[in-house]
Amino acid sequence: MWAFPELPLPLPLLVNLIGSLLGFVATVTLIPAFRSHFIAARLCGQDLNKLSQQQIPESQGVISGAVFLIILFCFIPFPFLNCFVEEQCKAFPHHEFVALIGALLAICCMIFLGFADDVLNLRWRHKLLLPTAASLPLLMVYFTNFGNTTIVVPKPFRWILGLHLDLGILYYVYMGLLAVFCTNAINILAGINGLEAGQSLVISASIIVFNLVELEGDYREDHVFSLYFMIPFFFTTLGLLYHNWYPSQVFVGDTFCYFAGMTFAVVGILGHFSKTMLLFFMPQTQRKDRQTGDELFQVQDQEPLFPGHLYFKGNKVAENLRLVTVHRGESEDGAFTECNNMTLINLLLKVLGPTHERNLTLLLLLLQVLSSAATFSIRYQLVRLFYDV
Amino acid sequence: MWAFPELPLPLPLLVNLIGSLLGFVATVTLIPAFRSHFIAARLCGQDLNKLSQQQIPESQGVISGAVFLIILFCFIPFPFLNCFVEEQCKAFPHHEFVALIGALLAICCMIFLGFADDVLNLRWRHKLLLPTAASLPLLMVYFTNFGNTTIVVPKPFRWILGLHLDLGILYYVYMGLLAVFCTNAINILAGINGLEAGQSLVISASIIVFNLVELEGDYREDHVFSLYFMIPFFFTTLGLLYHNWYPSQVFVGDTFCYFAGMTFAVVGILGHFSKTMLLFFMPQTQRKDRQTGDELFQVQDQEPLFPGHLYFKGNKVAENLRLVTVHRGESEDGAFTECNNMTLINLLLKVLGPTHERNLTLLLLLLQVLSSAATFSIRYQLVRLFYDV
Repeated sequence: MWAFPELPLPLPLLVNLIGSLLGFVATVTLIPAFRSHFIAARLCGQDLNKLSQQQIPESQGVISGAVFLIILFCFIPFPFLNCFVEEQCKAFPHHEFVALIGALLAICCMIFLGFADDVLNLRWRHKLLLPTAASLPLLMVYFTNFGNTTIVVPKPFRWILGLHLDLGILYYVYMGLLAVFCTNAINILAGINGLEAGQSLVISASIIVFNLVELEGDYREDHVFSLYFMIPFFFTTLGLLYHNWYPSQVFVGDTFCYFAGMTFAVVGILGHFSKTMLLFFMPQTQRKDRQTGDELFQVQDQEPLFPGHLYFKGNKVAENLRLVTVHRGESEDGAFTECNNMTLINLLLKVLGPTHERNLTLLLLLLQVLSSAATFSIRYQLVRLFYDV
Repeated sequence: MWAFPELPLPLPLLVNLIGSLLGFVATVTLIPAFRSHFIAARLCGQDLNKLSQQQIPESQGVISGAVFLIILFCFIPFPFLNCFVEEQCKAFPHHEFVALIGALLAICCMIFLGFADDVLNLRWRHKLLLPTAASLPLLMVYFTNFGNTTIVVPKPFRWILGLHLDLGILYYVYMGLLAVFCTNAINILAGINGLEAGQSLVISASIIVFNLVELEGDYREDHVFSLYFMIPFFFTTLGLLYHNWYPSQVFVGDTFCYFAGMTFAVVGILGHFSKTMLLFFMPQTQRKDRQTGDELFQVQDQEPLFPGHLYFKGNKVAENLRLVTVHRGESEDGAFTECNNMTLINLLLKVLGPTHERNLTLLLLLLQVLSSAATFSIRYQLVRLFYDV
C-alpha cells in the first residue's frame, strides 16, 4: 500500500521526517522566544542543584508538545494521499484514520492536563483520574478497531491456562493502567538537568529502531503508525533537550512527562507492542513507593498497614545491602526511622559518591541505553523461553 | 436506528442528558473548590467595573471545559451501543465515530490553547494561527466523511452562477475561517459580568431548539450529533454562569471564549448548519475593528491604509448618527481623532445613559434572545426569498 519504489522511504514517512526536522528547528527557536512569557506568568523556578539564584522557565514541554501537535495536524492527510489522489484503495481506511485522530486526542488531552497541573498544582487524585479519562477515547478506538483481548499465554503457564486466554475487560484495565503508568514513569526518574528529556529521547530512539527492524515483518502497518508519532516526538524532544541539557536554561515540567508518557502509551497500545514498550521502561520501575517530595523520608516505628509493611521489609533488605542510609532515633512522637529516598539517582550517588550533575545524567542515560539493549535481547532471544517465535 | 420506543428520548440522548446534569453539579462544585489553586497561580484579577479590590479567579472556563470533555469521553460508546450489544448495524459506523473523535480533538485543542493564552498572554498572530491549526483535523474529518463542497446558490445570484456551485478548496477556507470567527466572536462581546457565559448559553439553547425542531426532518443524524455536544455545553456553561453572574465570583477567561467558539464551529460544520449558526452570532458582528484593549481609541489623522480607511469612513457615519463620541485635537505627533470603541456595550450605554451592570448584561442577553428569534424567522420564513424550501 505504501510502495513508492523510487523513494528511499515511503512518501508519508518522508513527509513526516521533513516535518519533524522543521519541528526541531521550531522547538529550538520558540523556547527562547517564549522565555519572557513564562517568567511573566511565574512559570519558573530556581535550579535546586545550583548555587545561582537565576529564575529558570518551567513547563517548556508545552512548547515541544504544541509543535508536535501542529506537525501531526498538518501530517494527517498524507497517509491517505493515495486514496484521494490516485484512488488506489477500494474504500477509505476509516479505521486507520480514527486511530490517528484518537491517538492525537489522547495526547492533546494529556498535554493540556500536564500544563494545567504545572500551572494549578493539581492533587494526586486528579493526576491519576485524568490520565484515565484521557485514555478512554484510546480504549474506545482499540475496541472498535481491533477489539482483540485474547493473549497468547507464556509457555510456563500454559499447563494451567492453555495456549490462549481471553482477558476481556481486564485487557482494557491493563491498557488504561499502562497509560497511567507511562505518564507517571517519566516523572519518577527526574530531578537533575536533562534527565526527563534525555530518557524520553533514548526510549523514543529505541522504539524507532524497533519499528524500523519490524518494518519488514508481518505487522508493518502497526510499526509505520508508531513511526508517525515517534519521529516527530524524537525531534521535538531533541529541540527541548538542547535547552534543557546541563546547565539547564529551561525545565521541562510535568507537561513534558505527561506528554511523553501518553505518546509512548498510545503507540504501545495501538501499535500492539505494549509488552516490548514496557521493557524499555525498566529503569523507571526502580522506585518502590510513591513520591514523597523530600529526599529524606521519615516514618514512625509503629506497626504499619499492608503496603507500608512491604516498604519496611524492602528497606530492611536495602539497609543490609547498604543501598540506603538509615538513621533511627527518638522524637516526641516516639521512635522513628529516617532513610533517604530509594530512587535510582540516590542509589547511584550512594555507590559512586559525589558526582558532577552532568556526569550523573550521562550515567543514567547510559543505563537507559543499556536497558534498551537488554530489551532487544529479551525481545529477540529470551522470548523463545516464553513463546514460540 | 435510534428507535427505543418505550423511552421519551433515544437512549444515547437520555444518557447524554443525565451526564450533562451531573456535569452541571460537577461544574458548580468544582469552581469554588479550585478557587485557591487559581489565586495561587495568579490567574486572578480585579473587577474593573467594581470599587472592591477583591481578587477574582480568572480562566474558570477551563473547569467547565474539562468537565465537558470528561462527560463526552465517558459518553463516546453510547451512540454505538446497538452496534456492540444487539448487533443491529451491518458494519460499524466508522464515519460517525471519527466525527465524534475529531470534534473532541478540535475542542480539546482549543481549550488547551485558550488556557495557554490565559496563562502566557499569547500574541495576536498565535491567536489566529492556532485556531486554524486546531481546525485542521476537523476539516480532514469533513473531507473524508462528506467531501461535499457544492453549495446551492441563492436565488438572486442564480442567473450568474447557476443552481449549484462547487466551491472546492474555498469551502475549506470558509470552514477554517468559521472556526477562527467563532472563537474570536464570543471574546468580542465581553467585559461585563456574566456576558460571555450568558450569550453562549443563549446561543447553545437556540441551537438545541433548532436541533429539536429539525429532529423530525431529513437530516436527523446531523442534529442528533449536534445535540450530543450542545446539551453538555449548555449545562456546564450554566454551572459556570452560576458563579459568573453579577456580582461575579469568577471570570471565565479566554479559555471559555475559545472553548465555546470552537464547540459552536464544530457542530455548525459537522452538523451542516453553519449558515444558520452564523445567524445566531448576529450581535457578535457589531464591532468593526480588531480589539484595541482600551475603551478610548486614538488614531493619527494621516492617510490610513486600506482597512483603517474603512474604519474611518465607518466612524464618520457613526459620528453623524451620534452613535459614538468623537474628540479631535492636536498633539506633538500631529492632529488626532479620539473616539470611544464601537462596541455594542458602549452603543447601549450611549443610548441609555448610565445603566446598572446587571441590567446591561440582561439587556444584551435579551438582544441575543431577540436575535435568535430573528434567526428562526429568517431560517424558516425569509429563506423562501433565497432558496426553494
